[in-house]
Amino acid sequence: MRDAIKIVTIGGGSSYTPELVEGFIKRYDRLPLAEHWFVDIEEGRDKVETVAAMAQRMWDASGHDVKVHVTFDRREALPGADYVTTQFRVGRLYARIKDERIPLSHGILGQETNGAGGIFKALRTIPVIGAIIDDMRELCPDAWLINFTNPSGMVTEAAIRNFGWERTIGLCNVPIRAEIVEGPSLGLDPATLTYQCAGLNHFHWHRVYDATGREITADLIAKINTDDSPIPANISPTPIPEDLLHTAALLPCGYHRYYFCTEEMLAHELADFANNATRSETVKRLEDELFELYADPNLDVKPPQLSQRGGAHYSDAACGTIESIHNNSHTRMTVSTRNNGAIKYLPDDCIVEVSSLISAIGAEPLVWGEMRPHERGWLQVMKAMEECTIKAAIEGDFGALLEAFDLNPLIPNGATARQVMAELLVAHEAYLPQFADKIAELKASGIEIGDATVRDLMAQGL
Amino acid sequence: MRDAIKIVTIGGGSSYTPELVEGFIKRYDRLPLAEHWFVDIEEGRDKVETVAAMAQRMWDASGHDVKVHVTFDRREALPGADYVTTQFRVGRLYARIKDERIPLSHGILGQETNGAGGIFKALRTIPVIGAIIDDMRELCPDAWLINFTNPSGMVTEAAIRNFGWERTIGLCNVPIRAEIVEGPSLGLDPATLTYQCAGLNHFHWHRVYDATGREITADLIAKINTDDSPIPANISPTPIPEDLLHTAALLPCGYHRYYFCTEEMLAHELADFANNATRSETVKRLEDELFELYADPNLDVKPPQLSQRGGAHYSDAACGTIESIHNNSHTRMTVSTRNNGAIKYLPDDCIVEVSSLISAIGAEPLVWGEMRPHERGWLQVMKAMEECTIKAAIEGDFGALLEAFDLNPLIPNGATARQVMAELLVAHEAYLPQFADKIAELKASGIEIGDATVRDLMAQGL
Amino acid sequence: MRDAIKIVTIGGGSSYTPELVEGFIKRYDRLPLAEHWFVDIEEGRDKVETVAAMAQRMWDASGHDVKVHVTFDRREALPGADYVTTQFRVGRLYARIKDERIPLSHGILGQETNGAGGIFKALRTIPVIGAIIDDMRELCPDAWLINFTNPSGMVTEAAIRNFGWERTIGLCNVPIRAEIVEGPSLGLDPATLTYQCAGLNHFHWHRVYDATGREITADLIAKINTDDSPIPANISPTPIPEDLLHTAALLPCGYHRYYFCTEEMLAHELADFANNATRSETVKRLEDELFELYADPNLDVKPPQLSQRGGAHYSDAACGTIESIHNNSHTRMTVSTRNNGAIKYLPDDCIVEVSSLISAIGAEPLVWGEMRPHERGWLQVMKAMEECTIKAAIEGDFGALLEAFDLNPLIPNGATARQVMAELLVAHEAYLPQFADKIAELKASGIEIGDATVRDLMAQGL
Amino acid sequence: MRDAIKIVTIGGGSSYTPELVEGFIKRYDRLPLAEHWFVDIEEGRDKVETVAAMAQRMWDASGHDVKVHVTFDRREALPGADYVTTQFRVGRLYARIKDERIPLSHGILGQETNGAGGIFKALRTIPVIGAIIDDMRELCPDAWLINFTNPSGMVTEAAIRNFGWERTIGLCNVPIRAEIVEGPSLGLDPATLTYQCAGLNHFHWHRVYDATGREITADLIAKINTDDSPIPANISPTPIPEDLLHTAALLPCGYHRYYFCTEEMLAHELADFANNATRSETVKRLEDELFELYADPNLDVKPPQLSQRGGAHYSDAACGTIESIHNNSHTRMTVSTRNNGAIKYLPDDCIVEVSSLISAIGAEPLVWGEMRPHERGWLQVMKAMEECTIKAAIEGDFGALLEAFDLNPLIPNGATARQVMAELLVAHEAYLPQFADKIAELKASGIEIGDATVRDLMAQGL
Repeated sequence: MRDAIKIVTIGGGSSYTPELVEGFIKRYDRLPLAEHWFVDIEEGRDKVETVAAMAQRMWDASGHDVKVHVTFDRREALPGADYVTTQFRVGRLYARIKDERIPLSHGILGQETNGAGGIFKALRTIPVIGAIIDDMRELCPDAWLINFTNPSGMVTEAAIRNFGWERTIGLCNVPIRAEIVEGPSLGLDPATLTYQCAGLNHFHWHRVYDATGREITADLIAKINTDDSPIPANISPTPIPEDLLHTAALLPCGYHRYYFCTEEMLAHELADFANNATRSETVKRLEDELFELYADPNLDVKPPQLSQRGGAHYSDAACGTIESIHNNSHTRMTVSTRNNGAIKYLPDDCIVEVSSLISAIGAEPLVWGEMRPHERGWLQVMKAMEECTIKAAIEGDFGALLEAFDLNPLIPNGATARQVMAELLVAHEAYLPQFADKIAELKASGIEIGDATVRDLMAQGL
Repeated sequence: MRDAIKIVTIGGGSSYTPELVEGFIKRYDRLPLAEHWFVDIEEGRDKVETVAAMAQRMWDASGHDVKVHVTFDRREALPGADYVTTQFRVGRLYARIKDERIPLSHGILGQETNGAGGIFKALRTIPVIGAIIDDMRELCPDAWLINFTNPSGMVTEAAIRNFGWERTIGLCNVPIRAEIVEGPSLGLDPATLTYQCAGLNHFHWHRVYDATGREITADLIAKINTDDSPIPANISPTPIPEDLLHTAALLPCGYHRYYFCTEEMLAHELADFANNATRSETVKRLEDELFELYADPNLDVKPPQLSQRGGAHYSDAACGTIESIHNNSHTRMTVSTRNNGAIKYLPDDCIVEVSSLISAIGAEPLVWGEMRPHERGWLQVMKAMEECTIKAAIEGDFGALLEAFDLNPLIPNGATARQVMAELLVAHEAYLPQFADKIAELKASGIEIGDATVRDLMAQGL
Repeated sequence: MRDAIKIVTIGGGSSYTPELVEGFIKRYDRLPLAEHWFVDIEEGRDKVETVAAMAQRMWDASGHDVKVHVTFDRREALPGADYVTTQFRVGRLYARIKDERIPLSHGILGQETNGAGGIFKALRTIPVIGAIIDDMRELCPDAWLINFTNPSGMVTEAAIRNFGWERTIGLCNVPIRAEIVEGPSLGLDPATLTYQCAGLNHFHWHRVYDATGREITADLIAKINTDDSPIPANISPTPIPEDLLHTAALLPCGYHRYYFCTEEMLAHELADFANNATRSETVKRLEDELFELYADPNLDVKPPQLSQRGGAHYSDAACGTIESIHNNSHTRMTVSTRNNGAIKYLPDDCIVEVSSLISAIGAEPLVWGEMRPHERGWLQVMKAMEECTIKAAIEGDFGALLEAFDLNPLIPNGATARQVMAELLVAHEAYLPQFADKIAELKASGIEIGDATVRDLMAQGL
Repeated sequence: MRDAIKIVTIGGGSSYTPELVEGFIKRYDRLPLAEHWFVDIEEGRDKVETVAAMAQRMWDASGHDVKVHVTFDRREALPGADYVTTQFRVGRLYARIKDERIPLSHGILGQETNGAGGIFKALRTIPVIGAIIDDMRELCPDAWLINFTNPSGMVTEAAIRNFGWERTIGLCNVPIRAEIVEGPSLGLDPATLTYQCAGLNHFHWHRVYDATGREITADLIAKINTDDSPIPANISPTPIPEDLLHTAALLPCGYHRYYFCTEEMLAHELADFANNATRSETVKRLEDELFELYADPNLDVKPPQLSQRGGAHYSDAACGTIESIHNNSHTRMTVSTRNNGAIKYLPDDCIVEVSSLISAIGAEPLVWGEMRPHERGWLQVMKAMEECTIKAAIEGDFGALLEAFDLNPLIPNGATARQVMAELLVAHEAYLPQFADKIAELKASGIEIGDATVRDLMAQGL
């Protein structure tokens, strides 16, 4: 076990950070941090400095001697890092607003991780992960990359398969949240349950067994449309047809609502859009409030309001993973890692989100085996969509982007989808240098942004 | 080589039959028929007798001594059959009208082979194929089943994989049509070209090479939206984005329009729906006209009007296949047959539509190998949808039907799709005994058919 | 957690049993046994009664109230069983003597688990496992089958894949022995190490990592030919070429010596054969001595001499597995279980021996992924040999037996191997009813047993 | 169709060449050659000039205007080549004598294509194929490489998979010989039969069907040990057990004798070895006689003695392939080409020998599908052995060479095999620069060649 652990968090100015800090404080005995570096960009200076000051207050209040540092140059932070965690958002929340509003302005779901919006988030984020890995290779070649940046599955696939950083683990709070809330909904202690999970990030299924080995999946399916449902706060609680779920005898994740109930989810989101209350706009407001709280020099604990933000249990996933690596503790967790045959009929070298053991050698997936045709078909088309997106992101390949849109089940193919793609390219111009030529061509052809909110952001240079 | 070939055609009263007869007449030297039996149902007595009389006139005019028989009991026809060809339509064209109009009445594509309509056509047809095979096993155990009944891929998969009739070959006129019309569009003799085709029925791609081995796929992609395009008559000529096609560097089949241009295809079909001019209604009118012609006792050749019907080159596929089996001629054709590794990442025992050699041992597929992620993802989701549909058809499994709808890329998931499914179940009650309980439950719950045309048909007992 | 656990041990009269009992006593707090039934055959009455009396003394000395029962009818023992452990030997040690001496009398390795002898052990054992499972299905349908009977991999494959008893886990002491002895040879605490193991029973490889995640496989390869080597007592310590091992960078199991050093192993065994000191004959003598000790009414602990017997750490594997199931403890162990993609390029439904988690739902394998061509080729030919053997055992298929011999890398193909096969069939006649016709044919053709020791056993009806 | 075809034959001085020339003459109408270049090495000047003179006489006698050229610099010959055929033998027949005699001097089969000798032939040959391809890439980038050099499967795999020359087809006369001689043994016209062949070069199986589609494989198995057997002249006609063959219901190739009857084949070869009549020594004598004939200035047809040489029907394979490419004739032939799923459970990108269509786009394999466990196990271990050999050949990787020997089923593992390997390395020093360090080390350690014949060759610098 190494002492004096150094952690670097890229995107340290996130509103999530206090939860992460709280997680490290709780685990200090088994995970003795020495330094925590927050890396962010100049545009986020206010936020990161606010959060760092609060984090330092939290550590000080904990009685542990941990030093929080802020830098705007990740190359200053990386040397000697043991763990690099990523939670940055290229283009900040303004970009997410565009990802959601532009498709909705044409009657198409934006969906920031799996839909048209998610494809564009991947296009913006993946090149940055590549640059971070280039720096890690030089400055901290033994460090682990713990990725939380969405779309977490695609970003993790790019990190491992394309950029070759084997010591990457992709995380998400969705699986851990299910593990925490589902058992109690049946009066069972979560610690006694066995979870088998398989799929892709934001697109996975699980089965659950009690302490005697009895499967309780069907009991939990019966809870899925009730108030006890483990739906993340950012997803409208549209009922999923239970007869469909019982046929598969598998629990979906909340994001399956977009696919199984596309019509209803679109209706919800169009209503939100009309009220300037898309999830991104709501989050923006929540974040503004959170930062006001964080700025209070007397606050030295995570404020309860953060739990409405949507990433609850983030620290259980992130800090738990790091602690398991550090202590070689072979903890069973659901993470994004290389498939290698865990899920049949998906490519061996693609990244999947599966039940794995986490230890000093990283993530070892448990075998899931064959999928039924229904789940298999869904996973395969989504993985193909992800592969096209990653190729587009890395190579600036417009044909691959067309193919990602064409495959995406949330995007109805045709001229409207083309218009959405064009507007998104133009709106995100600053963060898509790999598509500079295509964007120039579109602008020359007179593409206009239809949504006034997005036009306003662009006018402000956001 | 066997002499005195006996052919049995199930659904002999089809308007296509004269083309089939013409095909046999053209090939008589290499394929000497002795008897041709037409099997049909009592409701189709007029049609089959009209067609049979015309077929006999065609044979008589040809100078060959071939006898045409009509029966309404297939067990009378099957003994001693060498080849059984299937071109029947359970529920006749009235069922197709329901398949197309019910979804469109709710703003959803019907699509009679791959969409909601195609799923229901499979539900009606597959049990009948099972019954035919039961009879063949007893009465003509060495016969080949040459299936032309749509959805041809799913029906063929059921015949081979589920009902165990290995001597089945599934056909479609789409691939052979491409082979006939594409070369001339570039001024090339079709006989000199090499076609590599792979995918599923009505969902396949191909590459083409000239006599020197040079690939000419890109040249043909450039023709796809021109007047020379090999689009079947039944598909609206919506332009497919060429940049998407050039990315894959593969030629799609016409049915890809539904997937690549869903928005435009839906708009076309909604306009046709409003004019009572859906494809099924148009075909109904064409067929009525054809049968008037066929009834002319002086007509002893295939009338030119048949070529507008949509199945052009049917006889080139069907008669060509039979001739290749009979003469052991190792002809290269695109047919539906067992995958066995021909297309990677699709199940080995599923049926695919691929370039194959046809000889006395049946169809041997040529290896295609790996698909790019884009085509792979599409094929996988479609194959999964087909597997769910076949299971639903054979087992009357409502959960599997839900899953087929859920996976189908032409059906937007949600309450409207549920309503469409319910109406289709009720409208096709007479042909879906495997779903009797579910239909009774739906009727008890008060499901109503929204479309007046369909209600009229039902009121007439059609 | 269930109370009052009932365990049934088939082949309870084995000399190993005291170790098993000791293992249960050590784990009583977490695994509270109520009854332990020993099932054996009449021919083994003396042995099983001796062992049962000693086992009862051991439990009594432990202060726990556990009752040992003996029966010669497994249907009396099975009702209500929680765990059925199998350690029987069809034909007793006399059969093993034939398995080893007949091949060696012709200059061919017998090798009781993977060679010609192992094939015949499978032929005798697999039908009996089938009969046990038939009884379990009726009498204790929720029980787990913990198989220790060799050839453990093939027997487990028959149990799961052929006889359909999913609740089977196959065990062997070889992997656990490596985990116990290797760490200390480098001065490391075994509890801190991570083992990744994959292959087939008696034919697997492993990698080892220390607590910080550093791989120490190469350090252990350097120990393999030293006195610290973890070679089981039953395998001659012929040095394995280290350059070969370092190329793979994997630790082999002791049985690989037969394959990597065939010439030397054969020379050793021929010398033992000449001295009537084949392993089976040595074990026979050791067992006779052990049973003299067990008969001592004052002995109530496992005698140290048992550790020379060859199955050391048997109880760590068997009792550890049962305890992990009972307590749902997710222990990492190497067991024989269904592949399901854990090892690429072996069939999904075959049984492999791999690192797995053991919990109340049984064994869940960890993904190993791709093998290098060298290990892959070896595993594939061995698995194919196993499949042919299992088919021969279940169906009495002589062709499959020919194929198993033909594939077995320890058997040089030709007339001599045919003679060995014929003699083994005849010598084991009493236990191979499925080959009765072939054996009758061979006897009629005048096959004679060449080895005098085997002829003597046969003359005594053994 | 291109005119004025230019063919370059590397190893033009082979005794086989007149058969090749005869093949081109027979096919001149469909394959109009303009130039045929013979490339060879200075040490083979006499032979190649003799053969070239004879080839020119043959062309002149045919009345076609084809010019034969000789060069000792392949870069002079390659520019403008349409087809490059390879039939060279690195180290000439002297190397083959070493390949066979060194193993036999230690009681181990040499086997020049699949045994220890074959491994060393691959080590010598593969780097030369790499150099030829480097030159082709520069000088004739559109040419086809038609490889006949043994071990043809491994050389073809290196050419396509490792050196990236996609336009390579590997040939062997064994499959075509079977197609020519088997039908007549049953009184059937070969042209009416359908062959399905799959496996590796010199290690494949086939099934045969008559003109009506009836399988006649079993009838041919019954002929395999008779005088009509299609055994190549170079393989001793040891009977293969028919019960083994009927179990698989597949026809083996002649080389399977080495695996199925290892004991008998070894006895034959040891007898030949003792008489200085190993196959290589016999061939050497045959070749000397052939070259005396070829030197006769009146000889202008292929002499009948050539058919004893062992490569009969070479020209049917080689010229037939070239003709099919040139004329885009889609001929069904068995060739070595990329697997791509044709044989399940072998790597997609390895080379297999399978029934394929040959046309202007090269070889397209037909799907074979699943293998039974027996054949599958054999193929997998042989392919793994081939992969290790190719890696050793290209990288000079001694560990990979150890692994190839370890896997090879014809080599009993142990100290003797190590000695054989060492002697072969030293004996072939001149042609194994990639192993220079290892050879120096072995020589320093005092390795001696045991066989006097080989020592004599080495003393003569051969």
